[in-house]
Amino acid sequence: MRALPQPQPEDLDLATVLHALGDPVRLELLRRLAADSETTCSPEGLTVPRSTLSNHWRILREAGVTSTRISGKTRLVTLRRDELDARFPRLLDAVLDEFTRPAANGPAPA
Amino acid sequence: MRALPQPQPEDLDLATVLHALGDPVRLELLRRLAADSETTCSPEGLTVPRSTLSNHWRILREAGVTSTRISGKTRLVTLRRDELDARFPRLLDAVLDEFTRPAANGPAPA
Repeated sequence: MRALPQPQPEDLDLATVLHALGDPVRLELLRRLAADSETTCSPEGLTVPRSTLSNHWRILREAGVTSTRISGKTRLVTLRRDELDARFPRLLDAVLDEFTRPAANGPAPA
Repeated sequence: MRALPQPQPEDLDLATVLHALGDPVRLELLRRLAADSETTCSPEGLTVPRSTLSNHWRILREAGVTSTRISGKTRLVTLRRDELDARFPRLLDAVLDEFTRPAANGPAPA
């Protein structure tokens, strides 16, 4: 089992993290990661080309939002929740609120 | 006095807002807007080309983060704080925390 490179907690940068989250597909990946402890790189029910998805995962990992471990042929992704919460208190909560709020104009749950 | 076009509060989109904030220059503009009630489009002390700055302001306005009023030859920008707070509770607070926290590795105040 090896892990792909990722920034150290002290190198997390707010603009980079916000940019990584500022995309509807990556927000959906975040929502799924927050609900499940770990996910594969090809989650079900996402109609996104594999290469596009791979790019989204890379952006999230390089921003420090996720960790990726490689186990055989499988890539397992986790949310770096504790590190993000320590570095940017309340930020993830505020973003994830979008998916739990009964908003009239929020995105429908997937 | 006229205003440039901007999205209605009900059309504010989380991914679009996060993308607009996911840039170091735009984060600095946000910090200044949060500190001052209104700013011109050419704030002092920013070493950013005028055309680049203009593009940043456009991205912020089109995402619904700011309002721009035109008064003669002057463009005055305000933060749409109340509308953003209503639509995305705690989000701006979490982002602006970065500039008030005595973080060892946070950005230096401008």
